Amino acid sequence: MEAEEEGARLAARLAAGGQGHVLRFWPQLGAAERRELAAELRGMDVAEINGFFRRARGGGGGAAGAPDGRMEPVPRDALGSASRDRGLLPGWESRGLAEIAGGRVGALLLAGGQGTRLGVPYPKGMCDVGLPSRKSLFHLQAQRLRRLQQLAEERHGQPCCIPWYIMTSGRTVESTREFFQKHRYFGLKKENVVFFQQGMLPALGFDGKILLEEKGRISMAPDGNGGLYRALGAHGIVDDMERRGVQSVHVYCVDNILVKVADPAFIGFCLEKGADCGAKVVEKTNPTEPVGVVCRVDGVYQVVEYSEISLATAQKRGPDGRLLFNAGNIANHFFTTAFLKDVVNTYEPQLQHHVAEKKIPHVDMETGQLVQPEKPNGIKMEKFVFDIFQFSKKFVVYEVLREDEFSPLKNADSQNGKDNPTTARHALMSLHHRWVLNAGGHFVDENGTRIPAIPRLKDANDLPIQCEISPLISYGGEGLEKYVKDREFRAPLIIDEDGVHELVKNGM
Amino acid sequence: MEAEEEGARLAARLAAGGQGHVLRFWPQLGAAERRELAAELRGMDVAEINGFFRRARGGGGGAAGAPDGRMEPVPRDALGSASRDRGLLPGWESRGLAEIAGGRVGALLLAGGQGTRLGVPYPKGMCDVGLPSRKSLFHLQAQRLRRLQQLAEERHGQPCCIPWYIMTSGRTVESTREFFQKHRYFGLKKENVVFFQQGMLPALGFDGKILLEEKGRISMAPDGNGGLYRALGAHGIVDDMERRGVQSVHVYCVDNILVKVADPAFIGFCLEKGADCGAKVVEKTNPTEPVGVVCRVDGVYQVVEYSEISLATAQKRGPDGRLLFNAGNIANHFFTTAFLKDVVNTYEPQLQHHVAEKKIPHVDMETGQLVQPEKPNGIKMEKFVFDIFQFSKKFVVYEVLREDEFSPLKNADSQNGKDNPTTARHALMSLHHRWVLNAGGHFVDENGTRIPAIPRLKDANDLPIQCEISPLISYGGEGLEKYVKDREFRAPLIIDEDGVHELVKNGM
Repeated sequence: MEAEEEGARLAARLAAGGQGHVLRFWPQLGAAERRELAAELRGMDVAEINGFFRRARGGGGGAAGAPDGRMEPVPRDALGSASRDRGLLPGWESRGLAEIAGGRVGALLLAGGQGTRLGVPYPKGMCDVGLPSRKSLFHLQAQRLRRLQQLAEERHGQPCCIPWYIMTSGRTVESTREFFQKHRYFGLKKENVVFFQQGMLPALGFDGKILLEEKGRISMAPDGNGGLYRALGAHGIVDDMERRGVQSVHVYCVDNILVKVADPAFIGFCLEKGADCGAKVVEKTNPTEPVGVVCRVDGVYQVVEYSEISLATAQKRGPDGRLLFNAGNIANHFFTTAFLKDVVNTYEPQLQHHVAEKKIPHVDMETGQLVQPEKPNGIKMEKFVFDIFQFSKKFVVYEVLREDEFSPLKNADSQNGKDNPTTARHALMSLHHRWVLNAGGHFVDENGTRIPAIPRLKDANDLPIQCEISPLISYGGEGLEKYVKDREFRAPLIIDEDGVHELVKNGM
Repeated sequence: MEAEEEGARLAARLAAGGQGHVLRFWPQLGAAERRELAAELRGMDVAEINGFFRRARGGGGGAAGAPDGRMEPVPRDALGSASRDRGLLPGWESRGLAEIAGGRVGALLLAGGQGTRLGVPYPKGMCDVGLPSRKSLFHLQAQRLRRLQQLAEERHGQPCCIPWYIMTSGRTVESTREFFQKHRYFGLKKENVVFFQQGMLPALGFDGKILLEEKGRISMAPDGNGGLYRALGAHGIVDDMERRGVQSVHVYCVDNILVKVADPAFIGFCLEKGADCGAKVVEKTNPTEPVGVVCRVDGVYQVVEYSEISLATAQKRGPDGRLLFNAGNIANHFFTTAFLKDVVNTYEPQLQHHVAEKKIPHVDMETGQLVQPEKPNGIKMEKFVFDIFQFSKKFVVYEVLREDEFSPLKNADSQNGKDNPTTARHALMSLHHRWVLNAGGHFVDENGTRIPAIPRLKDANDLPIQCEISPLISYGGEGLEKYVKDREFRAPLIIDEDGVHELVKNGM
């Protein structure tokens, strides 16, 4: 009886919003299905969704007109570069470590994606890309945070912590929490790992009608990584940051195996510049590389996605011969807590959703059959994490070297594939190989002959030098001399924290 | 009887050179095998080979000591750059076209390789990488030469030709010639296509003894792409160039699908600079990219291979943040005929062979069994085409954009592969797609919506826009406006010379 009453109430509310059709199959649903559908609909603000749709479809704001003719590059004085400003790096890093030691830095992980393209039935962060250690992305990131805390502590003589905020979505929240529990938070303190959920939005037809993925189930998707800002407010995360004294936040995506979580040099650079908002980028070197670029449009910072840019603009070059728009966005940002607070309280509601036209499997409202469309038939609405750059009062850009810091995991292994488990694994081992060489170590082959620093890899199938160094031993290549200097190793070389007496295990 | 006498004479000569063992199995050979082996040995100068071995093994010269500490980058005044000197490009191109129109330019193709890594039983140039036209690499190059002749003729009002010298090896000569005959020289005049063969050298054990690959067959391999210079002399090629009035020669490798054969801008740049020798390069942007770099060592130009360079040197950067050693060699060179003549007559004999230690399948001299070694057991001796840079009196470097000019075909298609038929095909179609956009054309999808200039390719398995333009229509993107400007196309788009009335065929 109660369920029927609720059904009637829902029906009235939905009908008033022009979405009454989602209950079309209610009479055919079992009790459990009705309960689930009702629960989903109870949390849904139909009027708000209709408003999102109208505004997103209406255009205006960010989506209006090609940005192409109005783009300006990042000026040199807003840019810090790991390759061009090498002399300044130690100072920036010191500043960042001091902030960390003072407990004023937090890390925020965007982990709401479902790994659909990667083809795994669990969150991307749980992926093991086949490293010798079989560590997952979450595991690597957690250990990097631990090592960074240790470095800051050693430098400044005071214990500290970097709180880790992890944004999941309705689809990833349970398995993520369970994974962390099972692995005892990878040695972090449980109270310093804060999970929260981003929102979900229904997929809509081109007419704005909510689509069903089953007769008793709405087609829902996370509201984009820019759903972060709404979620920060909804779950009191900025309050938590303030309570802990966090003043700087490093926001990053789960899928980059090389990510320098809470990178002190990046944070120090942003603070030295007095920035409230910063983007870490890699140099785009070929005009048609599919990467969004950080730039100004009508004087305001934003990321222009590669699909929005004309070839003529993509090909433009500055006087130094570099591409004019070369600040490739890698979803790796700095925000002050104060800026995030303003965003949550003031700016976020002004943001419009981006509309992605998609082929969305859905239940036909006449026949009740599931339809697999061959053409786009509806939209998903998303916000992007970089949508708030426009509100920054002092925006800076920090350029790093791709092979040191960026190798995203997006696709399953496949022929000629990129951004997959193999490329991620190789990128990490190749970085650690370079760390060993830079610390004065050497690799030799089975005959004892030294292997060149750049080994012959005729094909990406060839293995790079097998070398993995635990993040607990080194965050960014530091402190390895005592293990490797003037020593020769045969791969695989694994340097980890297990076993006090045999920190270096090698194949000899 | 005669064969026996010859066998005896050979035996004496070989024994005198310490290579008598190659006749160990003579008594077991049939008449045909004896004839073949005798023929091979007849052309072999054992004393010379022994001399090569002693000098190559003795080190000294080029192979002596790591070049690492003695490297200096290419100075700016020796560098022309397609990205940094854009304003000068039209002038260089005009100069090059004038030379071509005057009949003073030749092209020289290095096509002696056997495509072992590619896994095909025929020369690489015959490869069809799966373009819509199914044209082979030879076919594309021949048509580029034809178009260039046409462009020079249009500009200067006089018929001209670019003689094409094609260096094959003993392993590729017959099939290459046949392929050209079968395809009627792809529309070129037969007398302007000059085939010649590079030399072969036997593989040697570490003790300098010639290895047999069968009881009656020496293990032979081409003497490296630097075998060019000896072959130029042996076959009177420089004389032929002089006879034809050729003063500038563009030397390139067969495997680069994007190669701008006899590139007028490159040739014009070298001539404007008064150079006798030049190298076309692409910018190396990541320290561990496996590419050799053009630089000076002890003040002398050479290519330092990536395996010879330390990580510390590879990571060095100039004041502009670029890698200090960033002139990535792509086996694409300019020589004056005068310089080649000096090389052939004077310098080539001074060049030492490079030694590559290899696993060489061979017949065991005791048992007569074929051995497949698991470790390197012998050497192959090679010269490299860039070994002669050191003799140049005025050397220049010309930097071009990788995605416009360099995509080599080296490997078979395989998981995570690079430099394979798929990457070559995609590189060419992506270049032609850009040509269409730059000429004012557009691509639309099945709904008539314009496709972004940089299409979404989530994975290298995704097809790029299918677009192929015959070299007879455009050499480097020129002249396409009349076919594409302000028009919309659905891929695949093929623009070729077949059919006068329907030059543009598109999927609409």
